[in-house]
Amino acid sequence: MTPEPSTGNADAGAPEPINVLVARRLGINTQHEAVIFMHEDCHICRAEGFTAHTRIRIDHGKHSIIATLYHVRSEILHRNEVGLSEAAWRRLKLQDGAKVTVSHPAPLESLSMVRGKVYGHHLDSESLATIISDITAGRYSDIHLSSFITACSARPLDRSETIGLTRAMIDVGDHLSWDVHPVVDKHCVGGLPGNRTTPIIVSIVAASGLVMPKTSSRAITSPAGTADTMEVLAPVDLDLPSMRRVVEREGGCIVWGGAVHLSPADDTLIRVERALDLDSEGQLIASVLSKKIAAGSSHVVLDIPVGATAKVRSADAARALSQELIEVARAFDLQAKAVITDGSQPVGRGIGPALEAHDVLAVLENAPDAPDDLRERALLLAGALLELGGKAAAGEGRLLAATVLDSGRALTKFQRICEAQGGMRKPPVAAHRHPIKAHNAGRAVAVDNRKLARVAKLAGAPDAKVAGVEVHVSLGDDIDRGQPLYTIHAETPGELAYALAYASATNDIYKVTAP
Amino acid sequence: MTPEPSTGNADAGAPEPINVLVARRLGINTQHEAVIFMHEDCHICRAEGFTAHTRIRIDHGKHSIIATLYHVRSEILHRNEVGLSEAAWRRLKLQDGAKVTVSHPAPLESLSMVRGKVYGHHLDSESLATIISDITAGRYSDIHLSSFITACSARPLDRSETIGLTRAMIDVGDHLSWDVHPVVDKHCVGGLPGNRTTPIIVSIVAASGLVMPKTSSRAITSPAGTADTMEVLAPVDLDLPSMRRVVEREGGCIVWGGAVHLSPADDTLIRVERALDLDSEGQLIASVLSKKIAAGSSHVVLDIPVGATAKVRSADAARALSQELIEVARAFDLQAKAVITDGSQPVGRGIGPALEAHDVLAVLENAPDAPDDLRERALLLAGALLELGGKAAAGEGRLLAATVLDSGRALTKFQRICEAQGGMRKPPVAAHRHPIKAHNAGRAVAVDNRKLARVAKLAGAPDAKVAGVEVHVSLGDDIDRGQPLYTIHAETPGELAYALAYASATNDIYKVTAP
Repeated sequence: MTPEPSTGNADAGAPEPINVLVARRLGINTQHEAVIFMHEDCHICRAEGFTAHTRIRIDHGKHSIIATLYHVRSEILHRNEVGLSEAAWRRLKLQDGAKVTVSHPAPLESLSMVRGKVYGHHLDSESLATIISDITAGRYSDIHLSSFITACSARPLDRSETIGLTRAMIDVGDHLSWDVHPVVDKHCVGGLPGNRTTPIIVSIVAASGLVMPKTSSRAITSPAGTADTMEVLAPVDLDLPSMRRVVEREGGCIVWGGAVHLSPADDTLIRVERALDLDSEGQLIASVLSKKIAAGSSHVVLDIPVGATAKVRSADAARALSQELIEVARAFDLQAKAVITDGSQPVGRGIGPALEAHDVLAVLENAPDAPDDLRERALLLAGALLELGGKAAAGEGRLLAATVLDSGRALTKFQRICEAQGGMRKPPVAAHRHPIKAHNAGRAVAVDNRKLARVAKLAGAPDAKVAGVEVHVSLGDDIDRGQPLYTIHAETPGELAYALAYASATNDIYKVTAP
Repeated sequence: MTPEPSTGNADAGAPEPINVLVARRLGINTQHEAVIFMHEDCHICRAEGFTAHTRIRIDHGKHSIIATLYHVRSEILHRNEVGLSEAAWRRLKLQDGAKVTVSHPAPLESLSMVRGKVYGHHLDSESLATIISDITAGRYSDIHLSSFITACSARPLDRSETIGLTRAMIDVGDHLSWDVHPVVDKHCVGGLPGNRTTPIIVSIVAASGLVMPKTSSRAITSPAGTADTMEVLAPVDLDLPSMRRVVEREGGCIVWGGAVHLSPADDTLIRVERALDLDSEGQLIASVLSKKIAAGSSHVVLDIPVGATAKVRSADAARALSQELIEVARAFDLQAKAVITDGSQPVGRGIGPALEAHDVLAVLENAPDAPDDLRERALLLAGALLELGGKAAAGEGRLLAATVLDSGRALTKFQRICEAQGGMRKPPVAAHRHPIKAHNAGRAVAVDNRKLARVAKLAGAPDAKVAGVEVHVSLGDDIDRGQPLYTIHAETPGELAYALAYASATNDIYKVTAP
């Protein structure tokens, strides 16, 4: 079948373009999705057969995007105007009143490759490069993205496809390079509430003489991401030259990855994977490794928490995933090591940016009340990095990490990194707090991590930095009747009341059974 | 993992609901998709963690839907308002200023069944019923729908799954029942431009004493659907009691199926299948048969056009599809017969509602210039129906059909059906026409059906009934230089110019090669 031309009147011999309309910013945030709104009586919609949900090409100067059409029949839009979502507006680099041209987009060749995968064909590197390039350019609708992700789960990627996908995801983004070797990194596969080891690990590892330029994410659905927590202690919103300056001076940094586009397709894919609750091994590996490789790392330690409510549910699955991660990393000259950890309960005491920052500081300061589980986890992972990076012999990494932490050198390094990132800050404390107490005596046998995270979010985390939950008990503890289980922290009385209403109504977050 | 409650403050012991907002109709047509617009500074978005693209439950009285959230930061919405798409507005049966409650939806159990299918598990009838029920209620986003459709292509449905899906699609819709037996029907799998046999077949079959209550669709992406063409000749927008009255009086009807909800999930699935260009055999069969079974048919003839640009590309594929259609139909006591036909070029001369209506009338009137291919096709399919319905012995159906047509009884029956549906109309003729001529002499060896259909749409079809394309040549014809290949018909000079510009620029719609 011959593909249709991109637009009828763009061909030679056609009259002057009549598909020109005036752009209007409607202030509608659809996340990554480019949406175009046109009046249903617009002559172009009739002539071109643009019905609701049609994919439309929009051109402005040298910029071109594909957007999903919605029709408008009310006065929010004139007949000669097109409204655009924020994502579309940004990508076209528009100003109000600018003229745009609308037309039928050329067929996306890469969709036939996705269909091939659906029917069981192997995806070669070139096909994967085309697919990821189209996704990065915003040419896929949610329907197309979902089909690609589903196909990669129903017809699992083999190793060569996973390598091809990883390379494609690297190639569409920025790359960092460093004059030193090794460059180390760590990543946690599947987050755990409060698992804020990163600032501690970077401090220990950089204090030991390794280079660790760490980028982290902000929370999307959780009460805090590492970047949110770190921001309580120092600025994290650094551009690439500033980040490089910090790393050259201190050997490490902990900055927000959003300003650096190391694997731009990844955010788009993750959003759809989350909606589907699908997470194929091949895409997980490509997602993790593409960012590390683009960041110029040579050695990476992967923390894989295993637990009933964690991303990886069994030790067997963790071992299989480790093996595949290590093999794919090898294809890019990246040395990877996986550390399988306990994923059954939150780590540390705080859930929420400031509360987690207090935990991090307590560990770095060797405070007597520092949460021991957070310390132990950080030492385990830092030790693995020290061994991988050649600073400690096999089996001696944890001991070296403990020595650096106990000596105060990790704290000093952390303070210097904070100063280099723009100045260290003292984490604030919430003005409004309320404890949730045990209804009965007994033993704490289970905790619902999801509901606990929800209380923290209802209290305002992560937007309100001080908001969150401070946990007072661990699984296995013996509990008295009326003993505080956890305390809700909030910035305002309203948010406290809101979280409290939920926590009171849902009195099964901790399960305390009679001994 | 414990599912989250549908909303925090809906639990016992919570304070009065604070998630109440004022509904505002924004006049935005998103087709089937329910979309909710909330101001990004709305306190509920912050408190509930409603980010853009979150799925939100909306309640109004006893009506409840799930919608996709977009954030608004401009003045088109107040902070205490929610804007709703037309689809959401209709399903909630709202009036401007009505109060609605927003909350987190309960997790959709059926999505785990879709995930199971992705991973290769068999879908039992109960799972399919739950999935289709959720889809019909609008609980699936485009992302979820696409995943379900992709999974059914990557992990093809076996026969018991196809039967389960067919039953599920029947069960969510309306059912018709008739006091007579047999009740016959026909369906064309994958349309062909101008293939308007239905009004002719219904007239022949009903004139022969069989009952044929035919519902047809309007065009979605083509220049005309059967309902659009029929509407030129008589009203088609009949409700169920009116349709029943016509059938009881005349033994047949040709009405628009949109007013009757025979398989409501089908429209939703087809929209996403079209965007993906995926069409799994199981879903195709369930789509076709569910409507026939719900319409109360006992015998159905399936027209399967085969051609390089048709839905079915080879005779082998057509035979395999026929076999499966017949077997699945049998599970519902529906007798099916497949007729494999030529799908290489348009049928008849007209493309567009009025032009096709002229073709239909010419055949029924036995006019000397009636298009022979349309007549032959209608006789073939009507003959198969007469044999299947017991009115003709095997091999004698076509002859009986020809006798009924030639005698004028089919025309009389058609006129009576038109009168019963509200009065017969004379098809109009376009005021603006322009022929497209051959650039060189030679033989017509190929035609691009897609581009021809596009010319018809650019000329205004199907909204402008008279608009379209009148074809003057068939493949294999010898052509003189300057001989008209086809004529563009339009309602207005502007639309004629628009279609002409495209047709002139794209001068390869007919391929004419020197002999």
